[in-house]
Amino acid sequence: MSLRAVSIAGVGCTPFGAHPDTPIHELALRAARAAIDEAVIARADIGSLYLGNFIGGMLTGQEVLAGLVGDALGLANVPCTKVEGACASGGIAFRHACLMVACGQCDAALAVGVEKMTHAGTAQITAALNAAMDQMADARSGLTWPGLYAMAWRAHAARHGTRREQVSAVVIKNKANGLRNPLAQMGAALDAQAIADSKPIADPVRLFDCCAPGDGAAAVVVVARERAGAGGALPIDVRASVQTRGAARLASHRDITSFEATVSAAREAYRQAGIGPRDLDFVELHDCFSIAEILDAEDLGLMPRGHGGGWSLEGRTGMAGDLPINASGGLLAKGHPVGATGLGQIYEAVAQLRGTHPNQVRGAAIGLTHNLGGTGIACTVNILARPDA
Amino acid sequence: MSLRAVSIAGVGCTPFGAHPDTPIHELALRAARAAIDEAVIARADIGSLYLGNFIGGMLTGQEVLAGLVGDALGLANVPCTKVEGACASGGIAFRHACLMVACGQCDAALAVGVEKMTHAGTAQITAALNAAMDQMADARSGLTWPGLYAMAWRAHAARHGTRREQVSAVVIKNKANGLRNPLAQMGAALDAQAIADSKPIADPVRLFDCCAPGDGAAAVVVVARERAGAGGALPIDVRASVQTRGAARLASHRDITSFEATVSAAREAYRQAGIGPRDLDFVELHDCFSIAEILDAEDLGLMPRGHGGGWSLEGRTGMAGDLPINASGGLLAKGHPVGATGLGQIYEAVAQLRGTHPNQVRGAAIGLTHNLGGTGIACTVNILARPDA
Repeated sequence: MSLRAVSIAGVGCTPFGAHPDTPIHELALRAARAAIDEAVIARADIGSLYLGNFIGGMLTGQEVLAGLVGDALGLANVPCTKVEGACASGGIAFRHACLMVACGQCDAALAVGVEKMTHAGTAQITAALNAAMDQMADARSGLTWPGLYAMAWRAHAARHGTRREQVSAVVIKNKANGLRNPLAQMGAALDAQAIADSKPIADPVRLFDCCAPGDGAAAVVVVARERAGAGGALPIDVRASVQTRGAARLASHRDITSFEATVSAAREAYRQAGIGPRDLDFVELHDCFSIAEILDAEDLGLMPRGHGGGWSLEGRTGMAGDLPINASGGLLAKGHPVGATGLGQIYEAVAQLRGTHPNQVRGAAIGLTHNLGGTGIACTVNILARPDA
Repeated sequence: MSLRAVSIAGVGCTPFGAHPDTPIHELALRAARAAIDEAVIARADIGSLYLGNFIGGMLTGQEVLAGLVGDALGLANVPCTKVEGACASGGIAFRHACLMVACGQCDAALAVGVEKMTHAGTAQITAALNAAMDQMADARSGLTWPGLYAMAWRAHAARHGTRREQVSAVVIKNKANGLRNPLAQMGAALDAQAIADSKPIADPVRLFDCCAPGDGAAAVVVVARERAGAGGALPIDVRASVQTRGAARLASHRDITSFEATVSAAREAYRQAGIGPRDLDFVELHDCFSIAEILDAEDLGLMPRGHGGGWSLEGRTGMAGDLPINASGGLLAKGHPVGATGLGQIYEAVAQLRGTHPNQVRGAAIGLTHNLGGTGIACTVNILARPDA
């Protein structure tokens, strides 16, 4: 059966960083109100709410966030659902908002993502993030997230000759991009030496190769395309929105340098949109670690496998390159308030497609966002486009 | 746009109670495997998985349960999503599985609900359950769940003259029903005196008025109706599946003896199914406390408002009454492993409709299930029927 075409009518995003005095549901509300205001939509017209959040229960003791936000917004008695898929929770919320409009459950839906982390101690945050691992397997073995990506980095280096300076080029680029994004948590002007000199975390991963805990929220209003355009801002087409599952633990990966959830989501997204990677003008992808950008870019088919490091060092993923990646600063610089990240990427992509981004990619007409959870256990890929593209 | 009709092809449920040696994802797997086996469906045909869980993160440190279960079942790279809406999480998972099939995303979907609580201490369980309250309001004021229902009881008694013996009749009935359900956690033969003599919790609520923490899981395989019937067991029609939001905190209720989420969900469910409460042969509803059964039954329109206590004492909701409620034992006797409850109700209803329930309602052809979360912040109502009804 055919589903309706869907557009993005409004987006909102708080600054990512530390919000010590703002309760978690209030962060979500700020982003949601901004998205609704931009969409110029009556709250009575919003027929469904999805809220992406990963560890709100463990770090703030607050569940039922979807209902709390729906109540505070004054929505009608419409379904309000929290969805969770580790770091992909925000992307999952977006896909469900799109689906509800696409299948006619409602003409407008709201997706919100939120996380609040910086008030907690490092040990508490680490324990909470480890809830994305299989507690019977990876968590017992002492795996950490930097450890996982350190192993992937070593395997990628052994197979493709990927060098430290190539990986550092990802950090330099994303931190520099972050300097131009007013919502970014930690943009910086770095050189390779500063990265190589930063604190060792899990060899070869160093501190500046890692994203930091953050607080923040992002929100998107999705509408049926035939209703789009009532707001002041340019509506953006959702050409594909795909969610997949991948390996649940380290031992299930056939290849630690590739996430099957990303590969399968990208394949289906390109099919839905009727385009290929060469048609993309920019990408926002899940660079939770520097090496992750290289792995993810290859999984998305943006360059031949094994060439991710080379493309990075040669500037082909920079602002003036073949395919700018993470013009927002990505997770490394914009930040990674987990449940918010997938929707924050869509916020950034929409600004690029409207031509209003503070770090604008020239001629941005079609973009892709990629949000990955856990050991690749959950993934969402979206393809967004200007209506004229 | 029209959605496809949906049927239940298979159901599974673990015993509710204490499962100290079974990890949470393994509980979910047991129920899921039973449902898939009964549906006689290839795992490759399952196109979507929803897992309802409330406090797995806080009590077991395990998130991404949907992906873990999908991985262990050997499903393809299909979307696996955890949904949360406090005690309504299981019902929300079911609705989403139905929607994915109804809108053509897949021809078969799996809904699983699970919770594991009994390993935790009382203080830890209480803190986790309180995550369903607004932490900025009700939780700060010292509200507890027994306290909320004690207030509702007093208000109902003041307005309608509801008496202790009427409320106790709910406990006596459900505990007796539980004795006939092999999956029930705590069936019992009780008299009014034993209930009145049980430990005071929040006056007038006593210990036997409360459901207990439990471990357990339930699962349902949903298929497109045109594909139903391939399995050995009778497929059951889903005539309505509705999810709503209600008041997020005590102060938002216009009337503490009624949950607007239930009222609005029931209204829409009857509309979708084209029937009224008088067409129902039985109901499984959310009796987290004895008084809750009376409030919920009135909200569902099963009897005139204020008559819930009378109907209970007169046996009109008993096995031989006008409308049997909670033949399974309900939350009071079958148990309430939170995320599993909504799907456990559907398991019980399907057995009734197939005529195979150990505590069979005579002539059961159409039934309703009702799952309520938090202070009424989330609700699901389903109407299920024999194909010939």
